[in-house]
Amino acid sequence: MSAQPKEIKSANSKTDQTSPASQWISYRPEIKVLDCTIRDGGLMNDHHFDDALVKAVYHTCVAAGVDYMELGYKASRKGIVAGEHGAWKYCTEEDLRRIVGDNPSSLKLSIMADAERCDYKTDIPPKPESVVDMIRVATYINQIPTALDMVKDAQDKGYETTLNLMAASTVLERDLNEGLELMAQSNTKAIYVVDSFGSLYGEQIQYFVKKYQHYCRGAGIEVGIHAHNNLQLAFANTIEAVVLGCNFLDATLAGFGRGAGNCPMELLLGFLHNPKYDQRPVLRCVQDHIEPMRSKLLWGFDLPYMITGQFNQHPRSAIKYNATEPKEDIVKFFDMLSD
Amino acid sequence: MSAQPKEIKSANSKTDQTSPASQWISYRPEIKVLDCTIRDGGLMNDHHFDDALVKAVYHTCVAAGVDYMELGYKASRKGIVAGEHGAWKYCTEEDLRRIVGDNPSSLKLSIMADAERCDYKTDIPPKPESVVDMIRVATYINQIPTALDMVKDAQDKGYETTLNLMAASTVLERDLNEGLELMAQSNTKAIYVVDSFGSLYGEQIQYFVKKYQHYCRGAGIEVGIHAHNNLQLAFANTIEAVVLGCNFLDATLAGFGRGAGNCPMELLLGFLHNPKYDQRPVLRCVQDHIEPMRSKLLWGFDLPYMITGQFNQHPRSAIKYNATEPKEDIVKFFDMLSD
Repeated sequence: MSAQPKEIKSANSKTDQTSPASQWISYRPEIKVLDCTIRDGGLMNDHHFDDALVKAVYHTCVAAGVDYMELGYKASRKGIVAGEHGAWKYCTEEDLRRIVGDNPSSLKLSIMADAERCDYKTDIPPKPESVVDMIRVATYINQIPTALDMVKDAQDKGYETTLNLMAASTVLERDLNEGLELMAQSNTKAIYVVDSFGSLYGEQIQYFVKKYQHYCRGAGIEVGIHAHNNLQLAFANTIEAVVLGCNFLDATLAGFGRGAGNCPMELLLGFLHNPKYDQRPVLRCVQDHIEPMRSKLLWGFDLPYMITGQFNQHPRSAIKYNATEPKEDIVKFFDMLSD
Repeated sequence: MSAQPKEIKSANSKTDQTSPASQWISYRPEIKVLDCTIRDGGLMNDHHFDDALVKAVYHTCVAAGVDYMELGYKASRKGIVAGEHGAWKYCTEEDLRRIVGDNPSSLKLSIMADAERCDYKTDIPPKPESVVDMIRVATYINQIPTALDMVKDAQDKGYETTLNLMAASTVLERDLNEGLELMAQSNTKAIYVVDSFGSLYGEQIQYFVKKYQHYCRGAGIEVGIHAHNNLQLAFANTIEAVVLGCNFLDATLAGFGRGAGNCPMELLLGFLHNPKYDQRPVLRCVQDHIEPMRSKLLWGFDLPYMITGQFNQHPRSAIKYNATEPKEDIVKFFDMLSD
């Protein structure tokens, strides 16, 4: 009638490792933490950051023992007027080296390239000419053939790669299965579960992670997690994914990022037990550099972002709601989205 | 080598019910949602609320289909100067009826009584004389004998009761087991897992919930969850508890509550699928009545509350940090707590 309390799941080892010493107090050395503060946060200010801020985040990541830092996008520059967008939409070698020099640290650098929005063949130089270590290819389900060509191009040039399948929460089951089967043949380092709309609950994260692992394990590909905070679940879903065996974890300082923001780095490092991570530089950077931007850039949980998350929709209607004064009644906004 | 994705856990049925129709789209009618906005929020303003606000929360709970609303404490009035604390520290029948009349609704009312801080024998009238339906007894592990006498007193007078064992995250294992064994003999309606310091991760919530269930199931007692948001996990831990079979769920409007606050009602009702719950009145009350208090009362996630949560400590040092101007360096605060 009453079951004995079962063994807790393991935070720091894969779920099939149940020795007490690999569960809670220990850590899993395979875990890689990726800071995407400047890349995801750039969506809130069109990538216009002072060099001082980007340098502060870079030095914080180095000091905190973070594994990767993502500085921005590699967007197409065709037809762009100089100064129209900030430097971190393009991440030229010149801009990157102005911040990191030759990056004399163990921190690896990544940039994101959106499928169909970049001229990867020409704009991404061979790895020996670049300070970048990894190209993360972001793709919608219908762009997978292009994404796979981008991954191959980057690998041939000498980079590590990942595949970040966006808006997974809106993809039909059979399309997702086919997409995962294709992506698992790519020899990429990791395939990410991306909760673009911040709409996934823990149970759904479990479902996606286990599905991705089903396709990735045989190919030796890791599963990653990129969460948004519309339902105050970005951190919870990230550690749920850790427990299930995900080893590539995205986070940002103070959760800085588009809309409701991301998994906060300070929470994630506090949870992981690997002694190579140090939370203190993160706390100081959040206090000195990130929080002072909040009143202007307005990221983080609020009711409009919660509602777009609950309805599994892109946050654009919430961004518009928040930018409009005087504010509309929140119940009207709710009713509009539920119509 | 690669396992098939497993069945997801069930949000809306107990974990041992695995029929697809009782998992995600359905709901579990046994679940009771308890609003403790005024009770827990009263810790931020010494229980001084305008009647208009308390009435707004009451009418919101009625309209939203919430099961219980907790209005405050039943603290001892011995030696108290009139007006020293707000009315909701004492919850006299007169004060209660000024808000709810005879409570002509299906919403049940509860008040909280702290062990050793109330004169329950004299101050709690027989149920037929009271508009209150349930007495929730809050107790530390060493006060359990008193708490059990309070539960018996309330039950003899005709009330429903619960037992809320505070600061469970600091209790030694063998004391907790003994305490649960005693409490499970009380014939109370529910025993709550209370994460007083907001320090518990999902895996730990699992551990506590399963342990409490082990003691409660044979006695026909429900397990409840009361979470705090120090680690941005109040909502996540609450729905984790739901998945495990907890049926008594505490939440507050906009997460209003001491320190980092509680599980937000608007998120919880958005997650539960029971058609009797309506999120819309909650959204309006949060917009019109609760959020306007935030700039003055300053509840919610921030770095100091995160740090006390990470160190499994009472939030009092964070409350003091936040009340001191100019602010101390956050790394100094971190180092002070880790010393």
